[in-house]
Amino acid sequence: MTDVPLRADGRADDELRPITITRHWLDHAAGSVLVEFGRTKVLCAASANEGVPRWRKGSGLGWVTAEYAMLPASTNTRSDRESVKGRIGGRTHEISRLIGRSLRAVVDYRALGENTIVLDCDVLQADGGTRTAAITGAYVALADAVSHLRAQGALAGEPLTGSVAAVSVGIIDGLPRLDLPYEEDVRAETDMNVVMTGEGTYVEVQGTAEGAAFDRAELDALLGLAEKGCADLTRLQRDALSDG
Amino acid sequence: MTDVPLRADGRADDELRPITITRHWLDHAAGSVLVEFGRTKVLCAASANEGVPRWRKGSGLGWVTAEYAMLPASTNTRSDRESVKGRIGGRTHEISRLIGRSLRAVVDYRALGENTIVLDCDVLQADGGTRTAAITGAYVALADAVSHLRAQGALAGEPLTGSVAAVSVGIIDGLPRLDLPYEEDVRAETDMNVVMTGEGTYVEVQGTAEGAAFDRAELDALLGLAEKGCADLTRLQRDALSDG
Amino acid sequence: MTDVPLRADGRADDELRPITITRHWLDHAAGSVLVEFGRTKVLCAASANEGVPRWRKGSGLGWVTAEYAMLPASTNTRSDRESVKGRIGGRTHEISRLIGRSLRAVVDYRALGENTIVLDCDVLQADGGTRTAAITGAYVALADAVSHLRAQGALAGEPLTGSVAAVSVGIIDGLPRLDLPYEEDVRAETDMNVVMTGEGTYVEVQGTAEGAAFDRAELDALLGLAEKGCADLTRLQRDALSDG
Amino acid sequence: MTDVPLRADGRADDELRPITITRHWLDHAAGSVLVEFGRTKVLCAASANEGVPRWRKGSGLGWVTAEYAMLPASTNTRSDRESVKGRIGGRTHEISRLIGRSLRAVVDYRALGENTIVLDCDVLQADGGTRTAAITGAYVALADAVSHLRAQGALAGEPLTGSVAAVSVGIIDGLPRLDLPYEEDVRAETDMNVVMTGEGTYVEVQGTAEGAAFDRAELDALLGLAEKGCADLTRLQRDALSDG
Amino acid sequence: MTDVPLRADGRADDELRPITITRHWLDHAAGSVLVEFGRTKVLCAASANEGVPRWRKGSGLGWVTAEYAMLPASTNTRSDRESVKGRIGGRTHEISRLIGRSLRAVVDYRALGENTIVLDCDVLQADGGTRTAAITGAYVALADAVSHLRAQGALAGEPLTGSVAAVSVGIIDGLPRLDLPYEEDVRAETDMNVVMTGEGTYVEVQGTAEGAAFDRAELDALLGLAEKGCADLTRLQRDALSDG
Amino acid sequence: MTDVPLRADGRADDELRPITITRHWLDHAAGSVLVEFGRTKVLCAASANEGVPRWRKGSGLGWVTAEYAMLPASTNTRSDRESVKGRIGGRTHEISRLIGRSLRAVVDYRALGENTIVLDCDVLQADGGTRTAAITGAYVALADAVSHLRAQGALAGEPLTGSVAAVSVGIIDGLPRLDLPYEEDVRAETDMNVVMTGEGTYVEVQGTAEGAAFDRAELDALLGLAEKGCADLTRLQRDALSDG
Repeated sequence: MTDVPLRADGRADDELRPITITRHWLDHAAGSVLVEFGRTKVLCAASANEGVPRWRKGSGLGWVTAEYAMLPASTNTRSDRESVKGRIGGRTHEISRLIGRSLRAVVDYRALGENTIVLDCDVLQADGGTRTAAITGAYVALADAVSHLRAQGALAGEPLTGSVAAVSVGIIDGLPRLDLPYEEDVRAETDMNVVMTGEGTYVEVQGTAEGAAFDRAELDALLGLAEKGCADLTRLQRDALSDG
Repeated sequence: MTDVPLRADGRADDELRPITITRHWLDHAAGSVLVEFGRTKVLCAASANEGVPRWRKGSGLGWVTAEYAMLPASTNTRSDRESVKGRIGGRTHEISRLIGRSLRAVVDYRALGENTIVLDCDVLQADGGTRTAAITGAYVALADAVSHLRAQGALAGEPLTGSVAAVSVGIIDGLPRLDLPYEEDVRAETDMNVVMTGEGTYVEVQGTAEGAAFDRAELDALLGLAEKGCADLTRLQRDALSDG
Repeated sequence: MTDVPLRADGRADDELRPITITRHWLDHAAGSVLVEFGRTKVLCAASANEGVPRWRKGSGLGWVTAEYAMLPASTNTRSDRESVKGRIGGRTHEISRLIGRSLRAVVDYRALGENTIVLDCDVLQADGGTRTAAITGAYVALADAVSHLRAQGALAGEPLTGSVAAVSVGIIDGLPRLDLPYEEDVRAETDMNVVMTGEGTYVEVQGTAEGAAFDRAELDALLGLAEKGCADLTRLQRDALSDG
Repeated sequence: MTDVPLRADGRADDELRPITITRHWLDHAAGSVLVEFGRTKVLCAASANEGVPRWRKGSGLGWVTAEYAMLPASTNTRSDRESVKGRIGGRTHEISRLIGRSLRAVVDYRALGENTIVLDCDVLQADGGTRTAAITGAYVALADAVSHLRAQGALAGEPLTGSVAAVSVGIIDGLPRLDLPYEEDVRAETDMNVVMTGEGTYVEVQGTAEGAAFDRAELDALLGLAEKGCADLTRLQRDALSDG
Repeated sequence: MTDVPLRADGRADDELRPITITRHWLDHAAGSVLVEFGRTKVLCAASANEGVPRWRKGSGLGWVTAEYAMLPASTNTRSDRESVKGRIGGRTHEISRLIGRSLRAVVDYRALGENTIVLDCDVLQADGGTRTAAITGAYVALADAVSHLRAQGALAGEPLTGSVAAVSVGIIDGLPRLDLPYEEDVRAETDMNVVMTGEGTYVEVQGTAEGAAFDRAELDALLGLAEKGCADLTRLQRDALSDG
Repeated sequence: MTDVPLRADGRADDELRPITITRHWLDHAAGSVLVEFGRTKVLCAASANEGVPRWRKGSGLGWVTAEYAMLPASTNTRSDRESVKGRIGGRTHEISRLIGRSLRAVVDYRALGENTIVLDCDVLQADGGTRTAAITGAYVALADAVSHLRAQGALAGEPLTGSVAAVSVGIIDGLPRLDLPYEEDVRAETDMNVVMTGEGTYVEVQGTAEGAAFDRAELDALLGLAEKGCADLTRLQRDALSDG
């Protein structure tokens, strides 16, 4: 009889939390998705506008960018608003940039034409993995915004060259695990966020030793878990998008 | 046979939009409400903490304050984030202050004891009346936060001396109307926000001539409509709070 | 023999403080007024410039806006400068917006043509009622700036469709009173600022319960007092403007 | 018959503009002066408070500091508010620091005790020489604030070791001149601000070549003029302070 | 005879640029290093102070943090100062956080005691790899600051549990290469920064697909190169530190 | 045998610290100089760009401006970054403006044509006299940037009408001294910065009484010392520039 260390929520080590992807959550935005990774809830809204930033005008190329933020009451203990503090923190900047880069990895700017799509990812409730949920949901909102532009006849071709999804992995109590909730995240010795295309290639790998440095074997185990998680998420994205 | 000018959504002039008040929308906050006035959706979260701001320490008195904000994609056309602009706009300041004042009108600071409750009212979708929806929902979140503090044995008595609700009224095409959606709001000649207690007394009256100045008869008609609307909202708040 | 509760300065409940309106206080501005409501002193300067903000260019319409601020030593206890703090407070924003809205209520943008008038209302000394003094004085400065533009042949017609004046009213010790100095303002149970045209119609009504909520009878009493005060101020504005 | 180049206002080259020093211009501040150098008007308010900044606590020493600012409409063409821009410009910083340093040159911190005096110098109208007018007026406001503290029994001795006054000098069309109005200031080849004590010693000398560099003879001529101007201002300060 | 695609500077694909580590470059700081990776020059200064941030007081634990910045003229085209813009950009935040995390991976806070070491990494000249040069140099400056604290008897043990070094790797024209100068960096299809301990374990892995996503074989090749580069840098750090 | 009060570093009272001027310290900038006045080290970089600020477009005139800053670890005790504080301090503003004015005194804008040269003066190590070292070094960097523009055929003539150098002087223990290191600077009773052209005329004279006010004889002594120091610096600048 074995003595398996169970995760607090009873999941297997390579199992995602319950994922829900609710499209068309808002009425105004060209695409909008409420994405949930367990108790983590992120509202992803894609606003599409004609025109591009000044430095890109006349190039015939489009632009995709993202902004991430957390509502003050999304966390366990209320956090101050960045608008009230008058400055955006380093973590916010870092995640906004990561989301933008991840989505741009599957965008063909020429096919997008001189249109700009802004992805707003606002965390309504945070329980670990907000940035990976944001990327996963934002891709779906982006796909909807692209359909919206296509319906308007504003595109020069297919601007999406693939899909992207993201998941966190980490080593907790010596065990590699997929999709960490907050409770595991704070205890992780190593923590990695992996963004992959629907075809199983890497867009971004960000691994950080929180405690001791990690070795190559641990790195390989985490990459394997992430690959499995991203494949699962890719399937869920496809299912969501195939619903009308 | 008369030729009644119908509202675009078919409502009577003294009729509220469909109102929903969903409590416990978030897991962390002491109280949280998703309030909807038609397509306007505001997430109201009440965070309760021991302690008060420095200027109030040792007084034995509590404090209640509010912060209002709009998500960038909540509006028809995406608006820039105030955190990105590095400053809070005048409208945001004004509404945050209004919400705080309105709630404080029904708070007994001594019974609250040295606790602080912050009401975050984040507009997820805007279709007119966001400030009045925010006040109406924030009251319910506040009531839940008070229950939460009571359950923790943190109160010295009953901190709520009554309830508050708010509604917008305006004159559109010469007709006084209740609870204006965006489409009516922009056309209103006169626009008034009224905050009332559950007992029918006034907490705040803010009337503004958008076009021509208004006369006393018009003012009286608007006050009458607002009284009706606030009474309806008070009933809906009570119903919501009586559901466990 | 009755026992009338006297106001500290001996005024009747429906009596304004001594009001002075000194025109041409500055040499550069198109219009400038030092307005005094008792010990409250506000310097109102109207700067007129050709051209309008970008969003209005080519429309043929003018623009009128206002900025309110208090000198640090204007208050009982020195307040920090907003320029030093690096941000404008909510109250300042709110009052600047109110002044701008109030003046725009009597402006015909088409007759103004593509000119912009900025009203700077700087409180040199504060003793209650600074926003109402600012509106009352700013109207006179605006009228002088309009004359200045007319003398330059820059107008397409008469841009002023009327006059505006403003006054505060409140309930102190249960009694409705007109034009509150600081000492009464802090004690007021209900506090209302009313902006009216010279013809006696309402431009803005802002009533706030500072303590207990107020009822309809109280609201009516305050509106009556305000109407009387605004009529008196309108007369004083006319007198000032008729002096060359 | 000679052909003397006259100054636009008819003054002799070593003559001050008409100077007025009006004390007690405000009701709240411990000292307040409206100082006028011709059309330049600066309101100097001295606020006195118990206590000193944190870095000086417990030292037994007082502190004197100054803040300078210009109202938007004080200049020929309206300037934007620094509070609106969200940052204080270099010129403002520079002049605030100069005023503070100049006043501190005649302050005995030990005699002042742990009290802080803040001098707010707000330019109501600018016509050249605003910084020198500010220093000259601020000294008088400071002297009044010191009397105010003495009357309260808050002083440990005489905190003022002398007086300070300041004047601008410059070379215009090759001629050294005293107390430059704006019209001369912009044309000056060399521009110097000199702060001197009532005893005729130098506190600050700031000379700048606006066009060509200047030689030692020109420097000496300017220093001579400044000495004369500061002596005149010292006399006017004394007269003002001897009036009750 | 093969036709090897040469790097512009003639290096082998797995070869570092010329590296120099100059210690004691400044007189005041507890440790200071000018580190050069080819033409990239970063000044790393370690300031050591008694005491820790407020949230850590009384814990007996020390703190290590880092700030990264670029001088305006360090880049090909002058960049604006972040102090002038009034806000720190996302990239700056991100790199400052990375440097701090990397160094903290080899710090024993308990042995450091309640001391804080701040690593300022200022890029004097940028030619690719500024963040990896900064980490590599900052470690040496940190080691010197620790010696400085030890000499003062301020330590409770050995606060450094190892060393850290960092290097960039990337795929250019299909070839994995080590230590990219700017010219290669902008052309890289995939770009990875790797931070490793002197013992060959990973502290941070940050890989980004700049063009097409990368596959596992490419990832493995890059990790191999980085391991080699970090081992070389570790040797150079040891050499530098062994020079008295 | 006399008892001469020696300076801590053994210099005569009218002797400069060891001065080094290293040109071409950076690879990208049009001109770059590391200037050292004893232990004070300032990196002066001149960036030259076609075009001028908007307010000068089409005038045919060029522009020269400067920005001064100190690295956090340049001082004895680490100072906070102005970028982190989000605002530039008064001293920084003041010195940036002084450097810009000083250089512009020897610039012929017409000959410069519509080009802008920005001088970045970053203090790497501070030991008194940073602003005078910055001006002295920036002039050399400016001269190199002008040669760079000339080589590109971008000039309409000779934009430099002369040279500028700057030095600090002060009275320490009653003795006038040249080129004060930090240790003397903090003890100086009077402190003066003098900027002169290579021809011995004055561009800027800024004298400040730190303790007691100073008299004319002291002022004259300081001006004499400064003249000697600036002449020595002018010679060193010429020598540096004559080295190819």
